[in-house]
Amino acid sequence: MPDPRELVLELYLRFAQELADAAGEAIRPWFRVSAERMGLERKGDGSPVTKADRAAEVIIREMIADRYPTHGVVGEEYGAAASESEYVWVIDPIDGTGAFVSGLPTFGTLIGLLRDGSPVLGVLDQPISGERWSGVSDGVVMRRSTHNARVIHSHAGDSLAESTAFATTPEMFRGESAQAWQRLAGAVERVRYGVDCYAYGLLALGCIEIVCEASLKPWDYLALAPIVEGAGGKMTDWAGEPLRLDSGDRVLAASSQELHAGALRCLQDAAGDAPATR
Amino acid sequence: MPDPRELVLELYLRFAQELADAAGEAIRPWFRVSAERMGLERKGDGSPVTKADRAAEVIIREMIADRYPTHGVVGEEYGAAASESEYVWVIDPIDGTGAFVSGLPTFGTLIGLLRDGSPVLGVLDQPISGERWSGVSDGVVMRRSTHNARVIHSHAGDSLAESTAFATTPEMFRGESAQAWQRLAGAVERVRYGVDCYAYGLLALGCIEIVCEASLKPWDYLALAPIVEGAGGKMTDWAGEPLRLDSGDRVLAASSQELHAGALRCLQDAAGDAPATR
Repeated sequence: MPDPRELVLELYLRFAQELADAAGEAIRPWFRVSAERMGLERKGDGSPVTKADRAAEVIIREMIADRYPTHGVVGEEYGAAASESEYVWVIDPIDGTGAFVSGLPTFGTLIGLLRDGSPVLGVLDQPISGERWSGVSDGVVMRRSTHNARVIHSHAGDSLAESTAFATTPEMFRGESAQAWQRLAGAVERVRYGVDCYAYGLLALGCIEIVCEASLKPWDYLALAPIVEGAGGKMTDWAGEPLRLDSGDRVLAASSQELHAGALRCLQDAAGDAPATR
Repeated sequence: MPDPRELVLELYLRFAQELADAAGEAIRPWFRVSAERMGLERKGDGSPVTKADRAAEVIIREMIADRYPTHGVVGEEYGAAASESEYVWVIDPIDGTGAFVSGLPTFGTLIGLLRDGSPVLGVLDQPISGERWSGVSDGVVMRRSTHNARVIHSHAGDSLAESTAFATTPEMFRGESAQAWQRLAGAVERVRYGVDCYAYGLLALGCIEIVCEASLKPWDYLALAPIVEGAGGKMTDWAGEPLRLDSGDRVLAASSQELHAGALRCLQDAAGDAPATR
């Protein structure tokens, strides 16, 4: 007898695709228009927001309230509602608004679903390239891709010294976080900055091995954990704990359990650079 | 009577499109395949190279030798030939090989043409997204675009304090260059890292205002100058001099003459942050 909670996840995954389709339609008209026309503003914390962010979140919230009125919603632009429900949608209509306003098609729409506080489903949609990653507990598929439609499998078992690590910007690491990031950056082969959530999609594709970030909000990462873990990777906070709504602002994703463990040692301890001596 | 040197530029521009088409065909099969399959190696200077870089440069050089045997060629992978000719093609088959091997569709094929040592024509092609920028002295067109085909016009006259500045990575700035970059970074509204030549395309689209880079080679920038200048921007070295084969490794592109002058003051002088006092 199949677990009804697993069956219902299939339904929710299909619904999440509808949400991503609608968000993409709301976002595309504002891509590469002038800052004035897209209504670029600064929020209280200095982060940018546009008509596209707001329009996409409004349509997503309306669709959820209409279809699943008992579900909770936590979104970047319009806050939390019923966040103690069994099922809570955690959404970021445009993760990477800075990229969006610069005309860079590496931002993404993030749609996650928590069950009893834990992420069980996630969608990362890039509405300009048409790429979409969808993750549930048992696998990840790229539903559409301009050039590479295929089931996603991450590399596994590569050494940290041969890995590529991504972070959105070096400026997201402050104080001790900056030191920890420098240890990790020194232990990998290549570091690249600049691509928000899209980096987790590249990790799930097996193109890169590590994404390590700080100064994030829950809607920046909760949708991504099922995608990374469904692809065979591991994604936690910097203490190695599973991600939840009240996790801190720092996350580590790796394409294998071994790489995750090695990267975590770097972050937690200067001696992590040389795990052989431990 | 039209200048025959202008008429011949039209022919060369069409030929450059054929070169970009052929390069894209050579590159696409290697995108998002494993590092082993794409033949990822390190060159003497530590920079990565793949079968895609080599295949694309070989086909470009063959096509030039076949069609215009008296022209010179300078390429990243296979060096210089007849670089004293009146016309010299300067090519980088994959600018942003680090992005390419990470599966990030922000690398580009750069095809520039020098006449008597000065860049007169350039093509920036992104073979995954299908975006292409082509620049000659009198204008720029985006020939194909997934979502926004249109004639390119940069913003003009914006203030430096409201500008977005891009650079591939903070690590490209060393010593005095790093201090100069920090002055410029402190004078603009936003800084973003991570996208090689694609940033100059965003500038030509009017999406961003400044691209400032160091540690470059001539094939990294000579194709881009006609695109930026054709769009109404300005692109020079850090002394404000026009770019040529023997320019140094530092370039500054801006979407207007005024922004270029303001950014140049920042780079050249600590007092540049406060031009009103000069």
